[in-house]
Amino acid sequence: MTVPPPAAPGMKLAEVETPALLIDLDAFERNLRAMAEAVGPTGLRLRPHAKTHKSPVIARRQLALGAVGVCCQKVSEAEVLADGGVDDVLVTNQVVGARKLERLAALARRVKVGTCVDDAQNARDLSAAAVRFGAEIEVLVEIDVGAGRCGVAPGEPARTLAGEVATLPGLRFGGLQAYQGAAQHLRRAEEREAAIARAAELTRQTVALLAGAGLECRTVGGAGTGTYALEAASGVWNELQCGSYVFMDADYARNLDAEGAPVAAFEQALFVLSTVMSQPAAGRAVLDAGLKALAFDSGPPLVHGRADLRYEGASDEHGKVAFEATNAPLRPGDRLLLVPGHCDPTVNLHDWYVAVRGLSWEGAFVEAVWPVAARGAGF
Amino acid sequence: MTVPPPAAPGMKLAEVETPALLIDLDAFERNLRAMAEAVGPTGLRLRPHAKTHKSPVIARRQLALGAVGVCCQKVSEAEVLADGGVDDVLVTNQVVGARKLERLAALARRVKVGTCVDDAQNARDLSAAAVRFGAEIEVLVEIDVGAGRCGVAPGEPARTLAGEVATLPGLRFGGLQAYQGAAQHLRRAEEREAAIARAAELTRQTVALLAGAGLECRTVGGAGTGTYALEAASGVWNELQCGSYVFMDADYARNLDAEGAPVAAFEQALFVLSTVMSQPAAGRAVLDAGLKALAFDSGPPLVHGRADLRYEGASDEHGKVAFEATNAPLRPGDRLLLVPGHCDPTVNLHDWYVAVRGLSWEGAFVEAVWPVAARGAGF
Repeated sequence: MTVPPPAAPGMKLAEVETPALLIDLDAFERNLRAMAEAVGPTGLRLRPHAKTHKSPVIARRQLALGAVGVCCQKVSEAEVLADGGVDDVLVTNQVVGARKLERLAALARRVKVGTCVDDAQNARDLSAAAVRFGAEIEVLVEIDVGAGRCGVAPGEPARTLAGEVATLPGLRFGGLQAYQGAAQHLRRAEEREAAIARAAELTRQTVALLAGAGLECRTVGGAGTGTYALEAASGVWNELQCGSYVFMDADYARNLDAEGAPVAAFEQALFVLSTVMSQPAAGRAVLDAGLKALAFDSGPPLVHGRADLRYEGASDEHGKVAFEATNAPLRPGDRLLLVPGHCDPTVNLHDWYVAVRGLSWEGAFVEAVWPVAARGAGF
Repeated sequence: MTVPPPAAPGMKLAEVETPALLIDLDAFERNLRAMAEAVGPTGLRLRPHAKTHKSPVIARRQLALGAVGVCCQKVSEAEVLADGGVDDVLVTNQVVGARKLERLAALARRVKVGTCVDDAQNARDLSAAAVRFGAEIEVLVEIDVGAGRCGVAPGEPARTLAGEVATLPGLRFGGLQAYQGAAQHLRRAEEREAAIARAAELTRQTVALLAGAGLECRTVGGAGTGTYALEAASGVWNELQCGSYVFMDADYARNLDAEGAPVAAFEQALFVLSTVMSQPAAGRAVLDAGLKALAFDSGPPLVHGRADLRYEGASDEHGKVAFEATNAPLRPGDRLLLVPGHCDPTVNLHDWYVAVRGLSWEGAFVEAVWPVAARGAGF
């Protein structure tokens, strides 16, 4: 069922079939090291989110640099990661339904597995599955610290649920999941600071409330690429779950620092290589990458290194690029590197990573081709 | 690399893992028959677009009902379709790049292959590849009849290019590709009529111009699900390339007929089955299907049969549903059928179709599980 890869190791960039999902290996490796070096001295744990890359190859590189395990969002992702050599996976999500709970419990027989709950009945179902399979599952109680998605309210509701989890056989109460997803893409530094300060206060109070009830939070998890430094500095969180930092995207590049300049902690390392397939009229070219090669939920891609070009519209298999008639015209066969608007759902469109060393139009070569092994692993 | 299917034949709907891409087989089969019965009496050829379904299984069912072949957009799609038993494939797109042209020529050794050109150099490259492989490729000259995407201008530019194609070895000039994609989703019947009338006039003039130059258009291809009746009635087109009619989607359902009522030629046959994974607050539930399970380029999905529920926001793996506190509340484990906003890119997110007979919450069963064989076939 899987289509063959668009490249092979040793190829030059010009030989890669398009559209192709490219990793700039040099930038990618600098991103991995930068995060490891940022978190290492803090004494906090780094548990990167594998929902971004869906790749055991990349997860193992994160582990080799000190990560304690990885996160993912779906049981099927956890299965693929475990099969690929990852032995500690936290599903930062609710797992609902009999078959999914059975699969999670079966997985917990062979690797360390954790998950999140925000509902007492779901916790009881999870416990029953764990007991049936003779497994032990680490459970974090998810609290809503401002994202308005999943999670019980901080404070008393969290204490009640944690108290129940702690009594359930087959489960090990691990602490809290406190991810402020809505803060990650707030543009101004003071907006992100305010959101995380509020999340920190709610989380701190809940940790204290639980401690008063004899419920120790060994793990307080959360944070993303947009705010991790704030969570790290808060003294509240002890496990950071950043994902996008490995690749980055056009939307994260719009986040600003305290001086109003773009945050520059990580580099763009993910691209979609695209070819001009038509240049039918003055000032317009059509690329071979549209809705099936790029995610548009955070806006269109940017054309890397070509501020004179604007990707102005997508259909399923086409992208229209506008350019001034006075520019160097694009011609069929010309190639462009596109910076995805949003990395995670763009990765999920592709079966293969083409990992390139020395990314440039001349001299670059394909060092590796990696499957996006958990692509489509949605359940 | 491919994740296992979310269901197996014989399962009840309640046993299907979610999110899952569901086909309502009864509605799907009625759609296939309705199109065959609409086109059959006209004497025109039906060449359905396989970009929608990416499935040789479905393509063969279309052929069995009288289709002369199928269309697709990418060489890799054509390869998958040919491997799946389809022996006549038209790539309704420009094929650019040495490797792609070689692959197309190699494919033309084993099945009937056609493609579109809008550039003389591309036509010469295609000819060279065909000659090198001892293949013959049918070529349609694509003209821009109002979509503003690919295609040379109608009239003289088309005649010039067609004249060159007709002289090139390894190519067989077949006629014109004249697809008005921009007209498909115009809401009001008179808007679609005006757009197709204009496209028809441009195409008719070009066909006549070519005929005057001794260039016979055996094929004049185009039309989509939104406008095919207009092209069929025009006397200009002779090959109809509709794709979405097999499944339909929320966006096509917004097209209106001459009386201002929704066009009812085809039924909704494609769904994403989703589970409520969290119900954390009054009036809010969270589903397990977000950006990685549904395309949002044509708006959010509708909740089938539940006008009281509104899918109001997606993140990568989550969908938030709003409901009035007075409604029957949703609870974790409850299931909903979602009508995708746009069928083609939604299909492209999934590895498997779960084909269900007698779709309903009680009594339905999985009749077949089909791979979305050309999913990710983007190059």
